Amino acid sequence: MKNQVFQHFMSDNVCFGCGSQHPDGLRIESYWDGDLSVCTWTPQDKYAGWKGLLNGGILATLVDCHCMGTAIADAYRREGRSLDSDPVYRYATGTISVKYLKPTPLAHDVLLVAKVTSFKGRKTELTCDVYSNDVHTATASVVAIRVFDSSDDGEKNAFGQ
Amino acid sequence: MKNQVFQHFMSDNVCFGCGSQHPDGLRIESYWDGDLSVCTWTPQDKYAGWKGLLNGGILATLVDCHCMGTAIADAYRREGRSLDSDPVYRYATGTISVKYLKPTPLAHDVLLVAKVTSFKGRKTELTCDVYSNDVHTATASVVAIRVFDSSDDGEKNAFGQ
Repeated sequence: MKNQVFQHFMSDNVCFGCGSQHPDGLRIESYWDGDLSVCTWTPQDKYAGWKGLLNGGILATLVDCHCMGTAIADAYRREGRSLDSDPVYRYATGTISVKYLKPTPLAHDVLLVAKVTSFKGRKTELTCDVYSNDVHTATASVVAIRVFDSSDDGEKNAFGQ
Repeated sequence: MKNQVFQHFMSDNVCFGCGSQHPDGLRIESYWDGDLSVCTWTPQDKYAGWKGLLNGGILATLVDCHCMGTAIADAYRREGRSLDSDPVYRYATGTISVKYLKPTPLAHDVLLVAKVTSFKGRKTELTCDVYSNDVHTATASVVAIRVFDSSDDGEKNAFGQ
């Protein structure tokens, strides 16, 4: 299971941020490094905020999707099972808060490091730190909610219903 | 000045979210409606999070850029001057917090309504609410920092330096 990419186990994931098959998405890849989950992403120039700097909303998108993938992987890991096992869980963002510490350049890969700080029922809380070329450029907190569980009955499975 | 689009007065804006000339950006348009600033944006399918639903990070990007535009326009308005006047101000995001209340469909236009809640020196605080087809789908708070002022001397003008 070492270094399995979380997103490779999300079939039919159409997400702009983390859909592995999205033709024009960010296609992030997240995996465990001990108790932390990490993601390295290479910026494209079109995702500028200011000239030469990454757009803050795209940075939030990276954080959001990295944390949702981490929440899923964490839930499976707590149950001692692999990412391709049943039941299938999916998480959606309850809240995200990002503090921008310094500009994040487009010229370097962006490193995201997330940590699960709380796990209660369907709710997982995480922190996520963002680095560019060893500079800490943003810090975030995220609440993830389990909105899909393939072992649930019927209507509970529909996101937001 | 009624219904002037804030982003039309940001020359050389390369931003993915609000650059008017960005060839593949979100190209949001924000304007005053009394003391509120509003933005209506039509989703593209590629910005899905879940099938048929807007990606949460893209929603955050809309909120972020709409609030930065509002912070700029508010600062000019407080000085009783038009958006094409000098000095030129630019704001960057200090923090953004988004609470997702309900899924935001791709099928409807997204309406953003922002309000300035605090203005002190270089710091402007705002709230932003997101609606889809009259449903309140997200609420956000944003801190904007004036990082560029064309009347400042030399080094102060450089974002983040």
